[in-house]
Amino acid sequence: MTTYVQRLAERSSQAGSFVCVGLDPDFRRTPVEEVARYNRMIIEATAPYTACYKPNLAFYEQFGIPGLHALEETLAAIPAGIPVIGDAKRGDIGSTAEAYARALFETWKFDAVTVNPFLGRDSVDPFLAYADRGVYLLCRTSNPGAADFQHLQVEGEPLFERIAATVTRWGDNVGLVVGATAPAELRCVRALAPAATLLVPGVGAQGGDPQEVVAAAGGDPGMLVVNASRSIYYAGEGAAAPQAAAEAARKLRDELAAAAAPA
Amino acid sequence: MTTYVQRLAERSSQAGSFVCVGLDPDFRRTPVEEVARYNRMIIEATAPYTACYKPNLAFYEQFGIPGLHALEETLAAIPAGIPVIGDAKRGDIGSTAEAYARALFETWKFDAVTVNPFLGRDSVDPFLAYADRGVYLLCRTSNPGAADFQHLQVEGEPLFERIAATVTRWGDNVGLVVGATAPAELRCVRALAPAATLLVPGVGAQGGDPQEVVAAAGGDPGMLVVNASRSIYYAGEGAAAPQAAAEAARKLRDELAAAAAPA
Repeated sequence: MTTYVQRLAERSSQAGSFVCVGLDPDFRRTPVEEVARYNRMIIEATAPYTACYKPNLAFYEQFGIPGLHALEETLAAIPAGIPVIGDAKRGDIGSTAEAYARALFETWKFDAVTVNPFLGRDSVDPFLAYADRGVYLLCRTSNPGAADFQHLQVEGEPLFERIAATVTRWGDNVGLVVGATAPAELRCVRALAPAATLLVPGVGAQGGDPQEVVAAAGGDPGMLVVNASRSIYYAGEGAAAPQAAAEAARKLRDELAAAAAPA
Repeated sequence: MTTYVQRLAERSSQAGSFVCVGLDPDFRRTPVEEVARYNRMIIEATAPYTACYKPNLAFYEQFGIPGLHALEETLAAIPAGIPVIGDAKRGDIGSTAEAYARALFETWKFDAVTVNPFLGRDSVDPFLAYADRGVYLLCRTSNPGAADFQHLQVEGEPLFERIAATVTRWGDNVGLVVGATAPAELRCVRALAPAATLLVPGVGAQGGDPQEVVAAAGGDPGMLVVNASRSIYYAGEGAAAPQAAAEAARKLRDELAAAAAPA
């Protein structure tokens, strides 16, 4: 068995890249009939610069069943050897959590998924049971509302720190989602979870800084991927889209690699 | 415009019922080819005793796209006038939350949905923007792991109490999910959120007591529904399933109605 982190580290080293490309079609820009074709084009253009891909299921589910057919075609277009993260943020209990794990790991065959830890350990265990897959638990998200609950003080520390310290004890295949828009919190999570693989969204359109991210999270292949969605996926319009996406992915790869290189 | 709570109250009064029937096919018992037919049978048998239905999306997604076709057929089989709650427990940010709201309210046309509040207000607002729909936010779930984070003390109160007090200020169409397995917590949430509609899972297979639930949550139509899934849906085997489901739904309806009746 190779673990998810091993596969990610191998791909990340091979491509010299920490870049996770989000494949998130906006229904205002890309009608469902176009999604699979558009994604194939973006994947082909960005693959050389990409550590992993991350479709967020919301953007396929918004189209109903035709959107899920487009997701199927999209997954088929991703070259073997590039891990795929299913960004689903599911969270449910008991046999329901088992059903979600089955959906994401067996039906969709994602290498890793995102999961919401709010319902506690027994809601996460069914995902962790797939030892060769990765389970990124939400810890400190990249949106303004993250502060509403994630920053509440629990017994002297913010909730997101308690989550980081708690969930990383639940299994070897636990990773964490920490937004690039909060570099101080990212540094703090890395200190609490030195051995956890981190998925960091929020660079690009959301404004997080790639260099700050690497400085805070460390630049070890397999231990960090930085997601950009719109800023790569919609970097260009029409016929210029693939070339623009490739350039945006290459630029982010190079910025992250430069920040990670030994001085 | 009629609100979700108005429609639920009307149906609940008409059927004399607080019962929400969970439509959750177990893949070990019901292969995907059978799901739509089985659900039609259960719906027809239980409709007289039912305030609303609640398919949990996990149990359809576990089958892949054929499962979603079965969900489509299931929704088409539910009689007009009986509200349907899409139990999805989604939670994501910005345009992703908008996409999930579109998926659940526009594509699937659920009357209400369950949403995870962990990502904060801006992750919930896109659902609340649908003023004629209901948004049940997870507050205190019915599983043992609920205690891991939901019971952490934040500034002198448990997190689930803080959530109840906070999210009910976010919109008129906010409801709360509180498990029947924790009647003391349910009573406490009702005190904090006297005007919120409550979805209470955890009676039946999970062991919550119907009388305790009504005593804690109050018995006003539209303000409470009590979900049972397996204990109704799989009350009987084979050809006996519909009659057994009808009897289980009627029994739960009668227990809840007796508890809600003025003494």
